[in-house]
Parts: sequence; C-alpha cells; structure tokens
Amino acid sequence: MRAALERLQEELEAGDLLLGEAVRRACAGDKWYASRMPEAVARPRTTRAVSRILEGAHRHRIPVTPRGGGHGYVGGCVPVAGGVVLDLSRMRRIVEIHEGDFVAVVQPGVVTDRLQAAVEARGLFYPPDPASRSDCTLGGNIATNAGGPRCLKYGVTRDYVLGLEVALADGTVARLGSRTHKNKTGFDLARFFVGSEGLLGVITEATLKLLPRPPYRSALSAGFPSTASAVRAIQGVFRAGFLPCALEVADAFTLAAARRRTGSVRLDGCGGHVIVELDGQERSVRAELRAVEAVLAGHHPRFVERANGALACEGLWQLRREFSYALRDTGLTKLNEDIAVPRGRLEELLGFTERLQRRHGFPIACFGHAGDGNIHVNVMVDREQAGADERSRAVLDALFSQVLAWGGVITGEHGIGLAKKPWWEQAIPPEVRRLHAVVKKALDPRGILNPGKFV
Amino acid sequence: MRAALERLQEELEAGDLLLGEAVRRACAGDKWYASRMPEAVARPRTTRAVSRILEGAHRHRIPVTPRGGGHGYVGGCVPVAGGVVLDLSRMRRIVEIHEGDFVAVVQPGVVTDRLQAAVEARGLFYPPDPASRSDCTLGGNIATNAGGPRCLKYGVTRDYVLGLEVALADGTVARLGSRTHKNKTGFDLARFFVGSEGLLGVITEATLKLLPRPPYRSALSAGFPSTASAVRAIQGVFRAGFLPCALEVADAFTLAAARRRTGSVRLDGCGGHVIVELDGQERSVRAELRAVEAVLAGHHPRFVERANGALACEGLWQLRREFSYALRDTGLTKLNEDIAVPRGRLEELLGFTERLQRRHGFPIACFGHAGDGNIHVNVMVDREQAGADERSRAVLDALFSQVLAWGGVITGEHGIGLAKKPWWEQAIPPEVRRLHAVVKKALDPRGILNPGKFV
Repeated sequence: MRAALERLQEELEAGDLLLGEAVRRACAGDKWYASRMPEAVARPRTTRAVSRILEGAHRHRIPVTPRGGGHGYVGGCVPVAGGVVLDLSRMRRIVEIHEGDFVAVVQPGVVTDRLQAAVEARGLFYPPDPASRSDCTLGGNIATNAGGPRCLKYGVTRDYVLGLEVALADGTVARLGSRTHKNKTGFDLARFFVGSEGLLGVITEATLKLLPRPPYRSALSAGFPSTASAVRAIQGVFRAGFLPCALEVADAFTLAAARRRTGSVRLDGCGGHVIVELDGQERSVRAELRAVEAVLAGHHPRFVERANGALACEGLWQLRREFSYALRDTGLTKLNEDIAVPRGRLEELLGFTERLQRRHGFPIACFGHAGDGNIHVNVMVDREQAGADERSRAVLDALFSQVLAWGGVITGEHGIGLAKKPWWEQAIPPEVRRLHAVVKKALDPRGILNPGKFV
Repeated sequence: MRAALERLQEELEAGDLLLGEAVRRACAGDKWYASRMPEAVARPRTTRAVSRILEGAHRHRIPVTPRGGGHGYVGGCVPVAGGVVLDLSRMRRIVEIHEGDFVAVVQPGVVTDRLQAAVEARGLFYPPDPASRSDCTLGGNIATNAGGPRCLKYGVTRDYVLGLEVALADGTVARLGSRTHKNKTGFDLARFFVGSEGLLGVITEATLKLLPRPPYRSALSAGFPSTASAVRAIQGVFRAGFLPCALEVADAFTLAAARRRTGSVRLDGCGGHVIVELDGQERSVRAELRAVEAVLAGHHPRFVERANGALACEGLWQLRREFSYALRDTGLTKLNEDIAVPRGRLEELLGFTERLQRRHGFPIACFGHAGDGNIHVNVMVDREQAGADERSRAVLDALFSQVLAWGGVITGEHGIGLAKKPWWEQAIPPEVRRLHAVVKKALDPRGILNPGKFV
C-alpha cells in the first residue's frame, strides 16, 4: 500500500494528497464509535481532481473511501481498509437555484440547511430534513439516502434527486438523469447511486428537485397515558384521511428523561407522546389542525399544545430535539438503531421493546418517525459494566430478529455501514446478496470504493 | 431458434408454451405501429412457471420479451428478435391489501384501476393514474415507471414500489426491498428494476405503498386567449405556494379539434386551456380552489368552470379525455411524443412547436402534464402523402434536438422502446450508454431479456 501510494502521489498534482496526522485523524470516523486512520486524505475542489485521484487509485488498486460531513451513525465512511479518504467538504458551491425550473444544482459538500435556507428565501422548498442538517452535506445525504421527520409527506432524499454527476471507480465522469421533473430515458441510474453508501461511485454534483414553499406550518404536541394510546391516536389521524408533514412518537423512557432534563411538569404521567405537523395554505392548515386535534382528543391525551406558524412550530420541535440530549444526560451509551416495521406493527414493536428491556436489563428508549414505521430504538448501555458489549449485542440480536420476522428492516434511515454489517446476511437473502455483488463487481471491478463494507 | 425452442418445449410442462397463430398474433405488439410475431407465447400463472421458462430460455439462449397489458406507446414489448413472449396477464391476483401497513401486494397482471377501486373502497389510495389505467397492468406500469396527471403531487409508479419479486434472466427468483415505507438495507435494487422496460428481469409480484385516501377533490377548467397566458397562469399557481394534484395544459390546435368534436361553444376563441385539480380535506380544498381561481383570474381567462366533488371532477376531466379522440377525428396519424422540458421552458416549448408546424407543414397538437414540464407533443401526419414518413422524422429530429438543447428529455413517461430508439444515442452520452451496457451485461449476461431495444 505504501509503495502504491507513493507512486500515486508522484503522479498527482501537488496538494492532491494530504498526509499530515491531524487531517488524517479528522477523517478517521463519523458519529459511530469505530474509526481507522487513512494513509492519506484528498480534499478536491473540482470534479476533475476527483476523477484524477480515482483514476490513479484505480490503477494502483488503492482503497478510496468518500466522505461527506462525517455525521453518519453507522461508520459508513470509516476507511477500514485504509488508503485514501476522499473528503468532499471543499466542493461546497451552490451552483444554481432556478425558480422557473424548480431545481437546484449543488456540489456535494454543501451543508443541507444552507441549501434549505437559500431556496426558502426564494419561495422554494427542499424538504429532506435529517436531524443533523446543520452539519451534514448533500453529498452525504445522497450517498445515504437521508430521511427526516418530513419524509412522511415529502419522501426521502432519493425523491429529490433528478440528476447526478458521478465519478466512477476508474475516474470516468458520468452525468446521469436530467434537470426535468420526469425522465424515462433508459435505466434510472441516477437514483440507483442514491443510498449506495459510497460503494458504487463518488457524487460530484447533484441536480435536486424543489417544490413551491408551503406558506404555513402548524403543529400539535400531545401527551398520552401510554405509548399504546399514542399509537392508536396516530392510526386515527391516518384513518381520518390525513397525511401529515410529520408524525412522531416517543415512549415512556424517553419522556421521563426529557422530564428530568427540561423540568416540564406537563410530561408527568405521560407514557407516550405524539407530534403532528401540517403544512400548506394558512387557512387550510389552521382548520385541519383543529380537525386533527379532535382526532387526538378521542384518545384521551393528558395535554395538547398547539403551535401556529413556523416560529411556534420550531419551539414545539425543541422538545423533540431535547430527547437526544436527555438520553445523553443519563450517562449511558446510546446504541441508536433505526429499524423500520410495517406501519401496522408499531404498537407491537413498542410493546416488544418494553419486554426486551425487562428481559435484558437495559433501558430502551424509543422515539421517531411513527408515520413511516421508522423508530429510533435506543438501547442504553453502561459500557463500564463487565460483559455489557456481549449483552447489548444479544439485545440487538433479539430486536433485529423480531423486526425481520415482522417483515421489517434493520435500517430505515442510517444505512448498513459497519454498525449493521453483522446482521447483513440475516437481513438479505443469498440470491439478493449475490445480486449486490454482481452489480458492485460490474461498477467497481477492482473493489477500491469504500471496501470492507456490506458488499 | 426453432431447434432450441423445440428442446425448450420438451423440457417444460405441457401448456407452458403456446404456439397457435392467434395467440402469437395477439402478443406481437402494443399501441405503437411496429409489430413482430413471436415464435411462442407463455402465459404463466405462477412465479415458479416464470422461473422455469426463464431458466430454460436462458440455457438455450432464446429471447424472452415480457408483456403486460400491451398498452404501451413505444413498442417496448414488441419481440423484435422473436423467441418467447412472456405474457403476465394471467397472474392477476390482488394478493393482499393491508389497511394498517398501508401496502398492497399484487401480481403483475392486475389491471391498474382494479387495484385503485379495491383500495379506495377501504379508505386507501394508490395515486399513479396512467391514461390507460383501465387496460394496463401494474406489472407493465412498473416496467415502464408509468406516470399520469396526479404525478405532479404524488410522484410516479416508482415512488409506490416498496418491494418487488423478480425473476432474473437465468430464472433465479429474488425478493427485493420490503413492505416497510422506509428501507436502507443495501442498494435500492427494487426501484432500479422500475422503468427498466423488461431488460433486466421479470416482475412477478410487487408490494406497493398506499396512502390514506384524500376525502375530497375539486377542479377548475379554464380557457385562455393563448397558450402563453395559460402557461403564465400555471406559473402563478406555483408562485402562490400551491402544489396541485394535477395541472394540465392544452394548446390551440387541440382545443380547435375538441371544439369540433364536442360542439362546446365556450372553447371559441380559446388558444390555451388549463385544468387544476386539488385534493385533500373538503373545507381546505374548497377554500384553496377559490384561491387558485383568483390566481387564474389574474391572467384573464375566457371562462372558468368549477367542479366540486369526485363526480363533478370526472365530468370536467371528460373534456381532457376528449382531446385524444378529437385528434383522432382529424383522420391524421398522431405521433404522440412525450418529451419533458425543465419546467421554466414550457412557454418556449409551446412557441417552438407553433413555429415547427409552420416550418414543416404538419399540424402539431400539444397537451399534457404542464406541472411536470411533460407535454404530449402530437405530430399529426397524413401518412397517405408521399414522403410523409421522412418529413415527420425531420420534425421529430428538430423537436428532440431542441428539447435536449434545453436540458429536456426525449421521453418523460412512455420510455424508449422501439419508437425512441433512433434518438437514444443523441439523448445519452457514450459513458452513460457504456454504464447501461455494463449493468445489462451483469444482470443478463446472455442478453435474452427483451433484446433489440435500447441496450
């Protein structure tokens, strides 16, 4: 590897490869616990530089691991095989926002909420809203197909990718898709690269679909005596023909932690919590919020708080954001699993995790995107305790086995990366794993792109 | 081929292959003009039979062309290389509709509007609405990623495919995706098969996402003095923050033909026409319709007709459906091109087609999904005239060249098939065509699936 890297460095332009320890350390991992220092880091500013680096790495068979904002939760950008980390954070130009075409063209290193603010200032809307949107990048969002609360109504990152420029493993640059909102020309290669976790190519530019900005938002925050009643309230909202912008749930453990952190007395006695957000035209949103409130009222909430307008909504979401901090306050390590179950299994899932915590003696905090069946199941581990790792692995085994038995999936948002790799073979049948291998081999025959991951 | 087919027939079960002329003739083409009789037709009733036929065809290198309802517009299911047509119309079972999970599981031969009626009866909603929905099948919709007017708000068929069972070229059956609304486990293979026009595998079952049924619909039909004013009215609707369920436009030629067919005097003097449909909660929809009507009023419509409720909306859409019949009444052959342009190019496109008809002496009728920039450009050809085919080819050359120069695409809904194949190389750059070939080779190494098409 060292000899190959030296040859590569001789061929590249000065500054293409950085070898300093600090920069390599900064590119060793993400928000998950595993990390590995790469031998070199590249911070290209142009597609041409990305292509040049890949072409050389391909020739010398040097691993290349692309990196966005480094805010993933599954170790997806950890360069486990060493080699070069391709850090795209310097390609951070918003190339174009077009109000007539309803598209934005961006480089991969643009931070998600910077694009959102820029388009909203022009009456447009880019819906995907991962929790880390002030830190993560659009390239990373595309590589992982990032979601967020608003996915329920608006879909995930993939649904906003109209076109991609990608650098393939051998450095070939290909422009896939288009800037039209509909396109049936050939295979849908652009969207196939979305969510491929850096295993198939490197995103160097994206053409994203924008919507007209909904002029108004309103939200409800409601506490219920139990998670079961919270889930039934959610089902009632769907049955009344509503597809809210967001529909979130939190369980008793999460609420107790939030109660301790925020001092909010209204959470006392609440075993379940729901947030519903609606957006659209102001009059409609206000009237529909009252109708949704009436649906919730039928399930005997302990309290309902109403927020009208963007500012009030942000205040209400603050509680949701406190959930993560509140869990951190417990001093325990939070294993944040992002399983998804068929929507009708939500109540069973929350019942199952309650039994799981009793059986294994770990606190488990559940909250998340109830409308999508995509729940963050946080197994709270005291890693100081002897055998904690083995015991937490047993909890995850039990959780994933049950989720798969229900027809659910082991990851709804975060991807496989390293964190979910131990369950990859259980989650995906052999013939589908072979299909992954066939596609990977076709697009990256030397296996240089993000090696050591799920394929 | 004959010898190979005879060997295949000996190996298969009795009745697997049908050789009668009538059945072969019935599977020779679709709604486009090209056709070719296959040597044999298979009408399997089970996935196992599909797998068996593919396994044998693969071994004997016999072409297999899958076929849905046969209502495509581009000759996509014409078995140009002969061999076996795999007609999936007998696999027509709605396997499951699950109200809690918001999913439907269907066999490929289910006719689209049969599923829609079945789910709507249970308070659910399957939005994709291709014009041929009472004739086409869900398998065909998936193979072509079918659209329709409601795509503007709700997305295309791909956006409703959660999971697929596919039979690969060698007969291997693979279950891709899941029944959860979100899934990040590995590559998004399920959606990659959507729109692949039968070149990568055969869809044997699909798990589709359903929504809560919107309780109410309203629509407006408005005539404008010109297409330019109609387009500006459409832009005004977006600027006011509305994302309607559907937003359709029609040009002067289409309206004149519709005037002759329907005798509707209100179309007199109209050079452009717009349909806007909203759906959702009744009160919201009624109020928003008035707001949209006020937007349209700012662009001096000749008339505005309002329809509240599903029944009235269907009446209003009847005019839209008459457009196709009205064009047929002209006695001319309609070359229905489904180009898409970046949304902001709509006015330029309609101006360009007006100039095109003057320059080439062909009437051109434009109508379609203005909101998506996806317009049906109908070149009206008198094929009795000497040289009509060459001259119409010149019109299409000019149209496609301009559309591509604008960053548009040669097909937004119908696919490439045979009809658009002559422009495939112009539409897609060489490195992306190579990528198509690499993927095709990986998944169908012997090239037996729908050969003679765009890869």
